[in-house]
Amino acid sequence: MTTRFAILGAGRIGQVHARAVTSNTAARLVAIAEPFADAAQKVAAQYGCDIRSIDEIATSDDVDAVVICTPTDTHADLIEQFARAGKAVFCEKPVDLAVDRVKAALAIVEAENAALMVGFNRRFDPDFMALKAAIDEGRIGDVEMITITSRDPGAPPAEYIKVSGGIFRDMTIHDFDVARWLLGEEIKTVYAAASVLTDPEIGTLGDYDSANVVLTTASGKQCTITNSRRASYGYDQRIEVLGSKGMVAAKNTAEANILMADEAGFHEPPLLNFFMTRYTAAYANEIAAFVASIEDGAPMPTTGKDGLKALELAEAALESVRTAAAVTLD
Amino acid sequence: MTTRFAILGAGRIGQVHARAVTSNTAARLVAIAEPFADAAQKVAAQYGCDIRSIDEIATSDDVDAVVICTPTDTHADLIEQFARAGKAVFCEKPVDLAVDRVKAALAIVEAENAALMVGFNRRFDPDFMALKAAIDEGRIGDVEMITITSRDPGAPPAEYIKVSGGIFRDMTIHDFDVARWLLGEEIKTVYAAASVLTDPEIGTLGDYDSANVVLTTASGKQCTITNSRRASYGYDQRIEVLGSKGMVAAKNTAEANILMADEAGFHEPPLLNFFMTRYTAAYANEIAAFVASIEDGAPMPTTGKDGLKALELAEAALESVRTAAAVTLD
Amino acid sequence: MTTRFAILGAGRIGQVHARAVTSNTAARLVAIAEPFADAAQKVAAQYGCDIRSIDEIATSDDVDAVVICTPTDTHADLIEQFARAGKAVFCEKPVDLAVDRVKAALAIVEAENAALMVGFNRRFDPDFMALKAAIDEGRIGDVEMITITSRDPGAPPAEYIKVSGGIFRDMTIHDFDVARWLLGEEIKTVYAAASVLTDPEIGTLGDYDSANVVLTTASGKQCTITNSRRASYGYDQRIEVLGSKGMVAAKNTAEANILMADEAGFHEPPLLNFFMTRYTAAYANEIAAFVASIEDGAPMPTTGKDGLKALELAEAALESVRTAAAVTLD
Amino acid sequence: MTTRFAILGAGRIGQVHARAVTSNTAARLVAIAEPFADAAQKVAAQYGCDIRSIDEIATSDDVDAVVICTPTDTHADLIEQFARAGKAVFCEKPVDLAVDRVKAALAIVEAENAALMVGFNRRFDPDFMALKAAIDEGRIGDVEMITITSRDPGAPPAEYIKVSGGIFRDMTIHDFDVARWLLGEEIKTVYAAASVLTDPEIGTLGDYDSANVVLTTASGKQCTITNSRRASYGYDQRIEVLGSKGMVAAKNTAEANILMADEAGFHEPPLLNFFMTRYTAAYANEIAAFVASIEDGAPMPTTGKDGLKALELAEAALESVRTAAAVTLD
Repeated sequence: MTTRFAILGAGRIGQVHARAVTSNTAARLVAIAEPFADAAQKVAAQYGCDIRSIDEIATSDDVDAVVICTPTDTHADLIEQFARAGKAVFCEKPVDLAVDRVKAALAIVEAENAALMVGFNRRFDPDFMALKAAIDEGRIGDVEMITITSRDPGAPPAEYIKVSGGIFRDMTIHDFDVARWLLGEEIKTVYAAASVLTDPEIGTLGDYDSANVVLTTASGKQCTITNSRRASYGYDQRIEVLGSKGMVAAKNTAEANILMADEAGFHEPPLLNFFMTRYTAAYANEIAAFVASIEDGAPMPTTGKDGLKALELAEAALESVRTAAAVTLD
Repeated sequence: MTTRFAILGAGRIGQVHARAVTSNTAARLVAIAEPFADAAQKVAAQYGCDIRSIDEIATSDDVDAVVICTPTDTHADLIEQFARAGKAVFCEKPVDLAVDRVKAALAIVEAENAALMVGFNRRFDPDFMALKAAIDEGRIGDVEMITITSRDPGAPPAEYIKVSGGIFRDMTIHDFDVARWLLGEEIKTVYAAASVLTDPEIGTLGDYDSANVVLTTASGKQCTITNSRRASYGYDQRIEVLGSKGMVAAKNTAEANILMADEAGFHEPPLLNFFMTRYTAAYANEIAAFVASIEDGAPMPTTGKDGLKALELAEAALESVRTAAAVTLD
Repeated sequence: MTTRFAILGAGRIGQVHARAVTSNTAARLVAIAEPFADAAQKVAAQYGCDIRSIDEIATSDDVDAVVICTPTDTHADLIEQFARAGKAVFCEKPVDLAVDRVKAALAIVEAENAALMVGFNRRFDPDFMALKAAIDEGRIGDVEMITITSRDPGAPPAEYIKVSGGIFRDMTIHDFDVARWLLGEEIKTVYAAASVLTDPEIGTLGDYDSANVVLTTASGKQCTITNSRRASYGYDQRIEVLGSKGMVAAKNTAEANILMADEAGFHEPPLLNFFMTRYTAAYANEIAAFVASIEDGAPMPTTGKDGLKALELAEAALESVRTAAAVTLD
Repeated sequence: MTTRFAILGAGRIGQVHARAVTSNTAARLVAIAEPFADAAQKVAAQYGCDIRSIDEIATSDDVDAVVICTPTDTHADLIEQFARAGKAVFCEKPVDLAVDRVKAALAIVEAENAALMVGFNRRFDPDFMALKAAIDEGRIGDVEMITITSRDPGAPPAEYIKVSGGIFRDMTIHDFDVARWLLGEEIKTVYAAASVLTDPEIGTLGDYDSANVVLTTASGKQCTITNSRRASYGYDQRIEVLGSKGMVAAKNTAEANILMADEAGFHEPPLLNFFMTRYTAAYANEIAAFVASIEDGAPMPTTGKDGLKALELAEAALESVRTAAAVTLD
């Protein structure tokens, strides 16, 4: 069986998913939808697929599933449209920047009994999966404390920051999802400290570039998240989990596995710098998991609820920064 | 010139300092004071020093400096007695578990214009010193965010916990001092989450075994401290500092620098398990720094004020746990 | 421009190259030749290519290049046939197990002015390429001493060993090529020690499983190669180069980049176990380099001469084992 | 019981042993012998010991053991003198640069039934001891292949090289001893390649600065030794042992355990640069082992025979370089 895909949006992330779909032997790319003709043409030529409008795709009999790679403010509308059209839907996070809009969209997904997967790529990274497997195998006993370090090589452009929803909804949201995934228990309190240390313009836009978050669960488990929009040495993505019997950590990925030495000491290359390069395997794995769930009629590995929960944690973090107190979730 | 020492207390930490003093070519151990005759005799025989009472030492002409290694509840009294006696005083942290008592003792030290060094051994660890030197040399630009991971191999006995003042005054106090040392700026807010995860008895005693602390400064610098009373793999002592131009981290110290490999993969020995072994060089270095300050008539590298500040941070952390909000320091 | 490929042989290595060709946007797989119908059918179905006989491919107008993935004893004949047919030829090492047969085939390649690339995958591994780049950039000054560690996870089956030409022609041959590539100077003397340590059956077959080789050049540069047919911890592939100003080393590749810790210490997963997994990127890169040379009409990056030189070094090593003396090459 | 020591020679290595003896609680330093009055005075003052002549020490009733730290060409004579005087003798390697002279001295040691320990500090390094313990515990199964990497930060002065006996007798001799220690079987063949790569003056003196040695045993075990007189990144001292079930390696020791990161990547400090700093713990451990053997009346851990065997291997290596063939030992 082959799952037939259309991709909505031929931008950077759309191209990543086009590659993931076409390199998956259980999937086939049927169509691309994209308002910019050149970009559409490029994808169509490279992968031999049709160019269609979004509405055409919604009514195409030869399309089983769509990947939504359009701007964030269109996600919720498209999820609703394609859920109603009976297509399996994969949507990059976030569903929307507003909790109420997310809830409305998810209500329709539920009413239509549609299949929706929200893309949290970290869960599909091979190293993070190996870390999760070590926990699930009992290698570290009960999970007690998690430390997530997530630093971007540099801040996105001001234009992006303006529409991003801020650091917690744009960047930390991945870490909130990782925390929920690994804690194995819902989060009860959120405390966040945030400041502007790398670029005053970010502050002017009402956002932060540096943040620490402490999460706790009802049973007393704790998780800290450390975020910065600047790390000169590359894209720093680490997870460390302390358990009752041991510890497991996922290490960073360097540009090359070489070691140099000279009078100044030992040197290794910087980390992979770009999230698409760093998470290449994760993007392929998440499409593979989406296809497998469609084929098996199984629940999606990451759902609309996961997207909603992560967004609620981001909102709680923002409130915590305003009040300088921990925020308790329901 | 040789600084002539007496050590007050021949217990575990007293013996560590006896070794540090006697292996220092600028110092000489003149006397030990210890109520248990056997313990006193053992030190006297090993290092060829006298056994004297505390009061005798206070009036001994051939003693320039004392190292206070007696139980915590005697520290403040002894500091006052020896400050008045005109001796240079080295006191293991803490000065006292109560802020007011510390302030009273420091007032007398100041009035007597006495030399007081409070022992914060981390500042004298060779690796942490190399980390600090890298910061001071501008290797990472401006300090922005610090992550301190400090985990004991196992909890101390209940008897000790009862009189320890709790995890923040007993264990985190070292990390508070490290944070102040490295941030280069006083701490303004303290948030702490704490729970009991490793042993319910610790909770029964009113204490915690697992804690995360977030510190911020007026300029927006941030520091997180992660503490646990249990780490199966040894005494976990790490510091990581992110700056505007880079990062510097101090790594852990293993029992041996060997690597083994077999069908299950690669293996390295656990960390040094005991704080006295882990910080052997630090104890020697801190006595050397004390001696050097005495000889040069220079200010002590770690002062009574440092002891007071760290204790105030511990109290703020406790209040934060109670209120679930950040506590602002004056 | 697109280079149109046929692959000769649909076995394990043929499938690797089929994947490399089809994932290369400048190449297209036109046909597969394979005596076993099932194997041929499988490749044809997966990649949508024709099934043709070897002779049909030699006369196909729509084939520019062939990849020879047939048994070793057919390589030289096929190289000659396709050189005469005017196709660009990529042949997995070795060209043949006999030096004279290799020379004869290369003479025909030269006479036909044909393009021949002999596959030495190490040269196309990203980490080894980064190591080579560091040398070429002058990071370590002049190359002086090289240490190559190459250990298989386990010995191949006896059936394979019988026709392999022995450890030097089958396994060390890669390391001989790496040595030539990195020394930047032809090898003058070869000394080899070899023994049977992992499985007596290997000795019964007249082969060895453990070997150390020392190579020297006219200017006094040295290279050691350490080989074993058994490494419980995986496929061990390391290179270390000492130069006048420093050192550069390529590290191994583990199954996952995670670190676990428990009472026994720290643990990391074993190395990738299988050469095709370990060198996945290398196989893709070597086909890309072949395609680029065809497109540019440029010399092949690894030539028939490289194949011949490596084979001559293997023969010299065998002679050295027999004579217990260094063998001098012309 | 306390072993009473005299040290012969107050140079660099004599001072190292003076520190080792005086910091050992089972030993006492009674006297120093040294022709340069200033040097003798310095040691005497620092450790509170007598200054005596060598002959006085040989007849001193209050001296149980001597440490010979005089120039190499006096070692054999002094060993004989103190063996006859009934003192336990610790002599830094080598006993002599000539095999016959060593044999003659050892004959007298045997005739006098004297206790002689020849100092091979590697065997007492904590990391190498941990590696040896892992082998002895069966962690890697049967030892099969050993790789020893030993590189000096820089060449010694020409004056030293002239009297050193050459690289094999001066530097590789340590590695020969390590090989014997770890192989658990006597060495049967020695092949060595040597050249001058770092400094032509070394060649002018008839010596080499770069060497690779391959050792084999009767059962087919193999060991390679890689030596260079130059390593810009510090004193490179590594051992790796492959066994039937796994591998164990001893890693290098850096100046500090810190990690820095910036735009150029990750950086660690160079290795400890000086053999006395690198092997500080080893020197203390070897004196402790000497004292323990004296106290227990037990055989010395490293004997005159070990010194002789290592020297014979050095001579075989020299012959191998001359003949370009492996040399077989009796």
